[in-house]
Amino acid sequence: MASNSFGSIFRFTSYGESHGKAIGCVVDGVPPNIPLIEEDIQFFLNRRKPGQSKYVSQRKETDTVEILSGVFENKTTGHPIALNIKNEDQKSKDYSEIADKFRPGHADITYYEKYKIRDYRGGGRSSARETAVRVAAGAIAKKILDHKLKKKIIIRGSVIQLGQKKIDRKLFHWDEVNKNPFFCGDPHAAKEWAIALDKLRKTGNSTGAIIELLAENVPKGLGSPIYKKLDSQIAEGLMSINAVKGVEIGSGFEISSMLGSESNDEIIPNDEKSYSFKSNHAGGILGGISTGQPIIARFAVKPTSSILTERNSIDVNKNAVKLRTIGRHDPCVGIRAVPIGEAMISIILADQLMIHEAQIGYKE
Amino acid sequence: MASNSFGSIFRFTSYGESHGKAIGCVVDGVPPNIPLIEEDIQFFLNRRKPGQSKYVSQRKETDTVEILSGVFENKTTGHPIALNIKNEDQKSKDYSEIADKFRPGHADITYYEKYKIRDYRGGGRSSARETAVRVAAGAIAKKILDHKLKKKIIIRGSVIQLGQKKIDRKLFHWDEVNKNPFFCGDPHAAKEWAIALDKLRKTGNSTGAIIELLAENVPKGLGSPIYKKLDSQIAEGLMSINAVKGVEIGSGFEISSMLGSESNDEIIPNDEKSYSFKSNHAGGILGGISTGQPIIARFAVKPTSSILTERNSIDVNKNAVKLRTIGRHDPCVGIRAVPIGEAMISIILADQLMIHEAQIGYKE
Amino acid sequence: MASNSFGSIFRFTSYGESHGKAIGCVVDGVPPNIPLIEEDIQFFLNRRKPGQSKYVSQRKETDTVEILSGVFENKTTGHPIALNIKNEDQKSKDYSEIADKFRPGHADITYYEKYKIRDYRGGGRSSARETAVRVAAGAIAKKILDHKLKKKIIIRGSVIQLGQKKIDRKLFHWDEVNKNPFFCGDPHAAKEWAIALDKLRKTGNSTGAIIELLAENVPKGLGSPIYKKLDSQIAEGLMSINAVKGVEIGSGFEISSMLGSESNDEIIPNDEKSYSFKSNHAGGILGGISTGQPIIARFAVKPTSSILTERNSIDVNKNAVKLRTIGRHDPCVGIRAVPIGEAMISIILADQLMIHEAQIGYKE
Amino acid sequence: MASNSFGSIFRFTSYGESHGKAIGCVVDGVPPNIPLIEEDIQFFLNRRKPGQSKYVSQRKETDTVEILSGVFENKTTGHPIALNIKNEDQKSKDYSEIADKFRPGHADITYYEKYKIRDYRGGGRSSARETAVRVAAGAIAKKILDHKLKKKIIIRGSVIQLGQKKIDRKLFHWDEVNKNPFFCGDPHAAKEWAIALDKLRKTGNSTGAIIELLAENVPKGLGSPIYKKLDSQIAEGLMSINAVKGVEIGSGFEISSMLGSESNDEIIPNDEKSYSFKSNHAGGILGGISTGQPIIARFAVKPTSSILTERNSIDVNKNAVKLRTIGRHDPCVGIRAVPIGEAMISIILADQLMIHEAQIGYKE
Repeated sequence: MASNSFGSIFRFTSYGESHGKAIGCVVDGVPPNIPLIEEDIQFFLNRRKPGQSKYVSQRKETDTVEILSGVFENKTTGHPIALNIKNEDQKSKDYSEIADKFRPGHADITYYEKYKIRDYRGGGRSSARETAVRVAAGAIAKKILDHKLKKKIIIRGSVIQLGQKKIDRKLFHWDEVNKNPFFCGDPHAAKEWAIALDKLRKTGNSTGAIIELLAENVPKGLGSPIYKKLDSQIAEGLMSINAVKGVEIGSGFEISSMLGSESNDEIIPNDEKSYSFKSNHAGGILGGISTGQPIIARFAVKPTSSILTERNSIDVNKNAVKLRTIGRHDPCVGIRAVPIGEAMISIILADQLMIHEAQIGYKE
Repeated sequence: MASNSFGSIFRFTSYGESHGKAIGCVVDGVPPNIPLIEEDIQFFLNRRKPGQSKYVSQRKETDTVEILSGVFENKTTGHPIALNIKNEDQKSKDYSEIADKFRPGHADITYYEKYKIRDYRGGGRSSARETAVRVAAGAIAKKILDHKLKKKIIIRGSVIQLGQKKIDRKLFHWDEVNKNPFFCGDPHAAKEWAIALDKLRKTGNSTGAIIELLAENVPKGLGSPIYKKLDSQIAEGLMSINAVKGVEIGSGFEISSMLGSESNDEIIPNDEKSYSFKSNHAGGILGGISTGQPIIARFAVKPTSSILTERNSIDVNKNAVKLRTIGRHDPCVGIRAVPIGEAMISIILADQLMIHEAQIGYKE
Repeated sequence: MASNSFGSIFRFTSYGESHGKAIGCVVDGVPPNIPLIEEDIQFFLNRRKPGQSKYVSQRKETDTVEILSGVFENKTTGHPIALNIKNEDQKSKDYSEIADKFRPGHADITYYEKYKIRDYRGGGRSSARETAVRVAAGAIAKKILDHKLKKKIIIRGSVIQLGQKKIDRKLFHWDEVNKNPFFCGDPHAAKEWAIALDKLRKTGNSTGAIIELLAENVPKGLGSPIYKKLDSQIAEGLMSINAVKGVEIGSGFEISSMLGSESNDEIIPNDEKSYSFKSNHAGGILGGISTGQPIIARFAVKPTSSILTERNSIDVNKNAVKLRTIGRHDPCVGIRAVPIGEAMISIILADQLMIHEAQIGYKE
Repeated sequence: MASNSFGSIFRFTSYGESHGKAIGCVVDGVPPNIPLIEEDIQFFLNRRKPGQSKYVSQRKETDTVEILSGVFENKTTGHPIALNIKNEDQKSKDYSEIADKFRPGHADITYYEKYKIRDYRGGGRSSARETAVRVAAGAIAKKILDHKLKKKIIIRGSVIQLGQKKIDRKLFHWDEVNKNPFFCGDPHAAKEWAIALDKLRKTGNSTGAIIELLAENVPKGLGSPIYKKLDSQIAEGLMSINAVKGVEIGSGFEISSMLGSESNDEIIPNDEKSYSFKSNHAGGILGGISTGQPIIARFAVKPTSSILTERNSIDVNKNAVKLRTIGRHDPCVGIRAVPIGEAMISIILADQLMIHEAQIGYKE
């Protein structure tokens, strides 16, 4: 069932554990003759990597990616591109205490129940560390999109809610997003979040976040009804990110309380050749196919499960235990989810563009 | 690709348009020797079919399913089961007026942009009529689950919000769900919804809904990390249903504003062999794998796009037009989404159970 | 798994048993706007159908195909095309005698061992009747190839050996192939085969055949290394046909006894833009990718297993039985394999062409 | 299309070029708790590696495999197992001369035509070096088979023809196979082959071979009709090996000239619970499903294309050139194909066993 692979034509297969020798992936289906060097991928990895502010995990990883195959003289060859990232900071001792205990809210217990074996070092395969390979694969996907489309697709995300505090959309500006350690477009909210997270860090607690992703300049017609709809692929892709518990497109859950006369985006001609929509409640997708409007997706990330706060749990022998997780954790794992979400959108769009070309062809 | 197929080991492939000769599917991967007759499937189809109350589409369809293959002497043979449902009520004249126009909020325009051809009769392939085959496939999936598991999984759903009106959870009871035409567990809300929908019908407008699904007795350990997580499969499956714009698991979007100390479901031993969780914010899934707790999923359905209210749109030549959709439409397409959502859960669980057996084996 | 599906982008899913209600398939991934009517498919089905000469099964089937979906106003819509063929001649009584016995050389026994249930009527799912749907799907694949390529690919096959008697290649001519009931290009051999098959029919015995397929005008560059090589796909596709026990490409098994200096097809320039090969031992495929030379594939079909000659076997209770199969069987099932083999080549080439377009693009 | 992946539940994804940094693969779907260390895999790699006799390529590679993930405390965890093999001997200068020329009979030209870029160093991705990862993946597949089945499946192969010289089956003994550098079971033939290959080496020529594979103790019932038949999977798998031009099962091409009364393996009861076949023309597979008899498969390998003998060819500008390939090549690449073929059989059987367990369950 290839449960460690994602995508169909653009397809990557992921491997690696938090504290194993390496993580990485094999990216298959990449078109040939696209310029590609390790720095292209590193750029994206650097946005996700830990240890960049006091608000995220202090684990020390350079996340240095090495291209093992599929690139010759700095160009893709059309053959599988293997990307390997060595694990450098493997402080296994941080985790030894929980080797036979299960963290509440963590995959520890389900992995153990399923496999009857668990690599307890840093969460093993269930660690958010795996998401680095999504970002690496996403970098290649973005290269494909840029290579194939004259008008470049712009994919970017930001945190729009952290804990109970939402941003003020009137204050939002994309320029702000990279100016603070929270990918926050509202500078006022960013300050409040800094204070709130400092407090959480000190109390050893954590909180969640909501991330919004925007993809602009997506060509009309991408997406494959019925069971490979662009939105169902986005839902699958975002929900597969660690700690995500909800995904919505366009007006999302709020659309349920609208009237049809409100929610249906009216269409108006621009000229003889083009048209616009008066609103974008659909989030750029109708019937699973892109409308040409910006694609809007949001996803909800739960609070980090590894916290210092003492919690009730059990050990492998089903004895009651009290558990605190000492280590280097993100007080809000949602922050670093921004580049991961962007990567998943790149991957899905590259895959759908290639599927579209296969069945229908695409000419700009 | 294979964009009209869903599932991996349990896998069905769907076909058919709203006003074509028939809709149907081929269900592959079914274990042999499971008793199966057409009535088993018809039972589920009857729950979804149109024309059963004045609050849903008045299209007249018996939705009679015919098994064409894969069953011998009332037992499955292990070979593909073809299910065919003839379209009976093909009032194409209702739709002729919109043959060259695009309904706002509808897949009309994206299908046309993608394929440069559109079966305009009743929405063609984009019609919610396709969801009948999901329900049919879901009936077989449920049979597999019942066949393989001693303790039967109970899968049921209900509408928890219609338009702006939510149910009162204190008044909710499963017994109520089948007593009204809204799959509403709160009898008080059901009355209010009846009034609201009557009004919408008369004004030719529509509204959305939120459906909650519950799957009880799901064995621990189902789900395949990383990219075939149980929750990512549910997200994909539910988001692929027509008009769905959001999916969430457990506490969903609300979990983002919680603290880790609140959201992490604590674990307590029952005895030497079993344990419980003190809460179920995770919605029965951790790390993409079932915990043994009830699986909780919600999805948001947008208002029906085909409404009588006049809207601005364009025709195929990009001329501005005013459009009202005259026909037999659901004022709230979300209502009939309940059995569809249940079916998708059955399908996903049957598939994941078989994947689990393949890799790991399952013994009760 | 999807063991009843074939292909990746062009993908069909087959269903049906020999004596069930119908056989058919769903063809997914077809490009839109290709003219298609039932007669286009019927033309190919008629070449395969039984009862056309005394040398093949006398079963009476019109093999009338009905398009249930995916075509609108005689054009493909890009949506799945369901093809249904009703079984008309269901003389189940012919088979009742063998309901609890296993024919030597037949799938009866392995199907029963695997599934512990068997649709014994005419071989059920294991019947060569299933191959009709390959021919139907192949007709659509051929339409796609013709639609996408300016220079039409010509795919044709012939029987080159029947029993121990090979054709004389010096006498071979394509014009002869459709002039006799054996798809034989050597008129002299055709006469000898007629005599030999008459004798086999009278003695209730059967024999095998070797079929050679040729695909001309195949563009350079089709095929996807490493595990979707054009030749590995052809091998899979042809070996999946009932009764096939061997597949070879180009010089095939004979190439093993050559020297490299003989087997390596030398390349010579035609002009500044093109080149030729001096021989075609490679059968048009190098490294899994088409060279532009004709693709040559051969496959070996074993003798029909259902014969009148009495054979030793067992029944379901493992009692020894003597078995003769009375019915309407082909004395050489290999004859009707010609259009099936052609169909599989069409399907594989259409799929590979679309895969190529997805990853690389194709411009003539 | 995941063209660098093979298998469905047991599935590996391959990467790497002849003279790149490394080759390797990611193996997905492995059951947990199977003991696995690098030596288990190395054992099989050592049988295939070059430089072990003067009759094979003199390239110096230790083919040292490193497990990067999916194994914890010497046991599989159920997560993807990444296997990496560094390329040590990268004598790129040997190949620089042919950077812009195409070797007759080699994938050089088709790769270039398809991708318009070619990693010319040692054949790049088209190099037989890729087959090392099949052997590595096959080692894990064999582990799974041994873990799941009480009666171990024995899979072994031998060269039965080298050039024009076949073995004498009366002299064949499995004990002989590992006593000579040719995997030859007939000691007399082995001596003749040594002389013939010495001569070929000196004249800079090459020849082909036929390999026969045998799998004993394969449980009844493996294989998935219709399009994932055990024999069609074997055909696909073996034909995907470099330089293979033919595959046959059981009596293979010879069965075409038999009568049905000869080719149909008669069945005789042993006792109330078991039965035997009087012959094995079917090669252990009927209707795509294993019969319980030994599985017999043969494949034909063409002569190595890289030879010293001067040949006519062209360069990238379509100029005529004379070409000799100076380097370290196998005079008969078929010899080292034995462990590769064995590996493919292990992989296919492990995959089919797990598919069988998923749909039907398997109890010994």
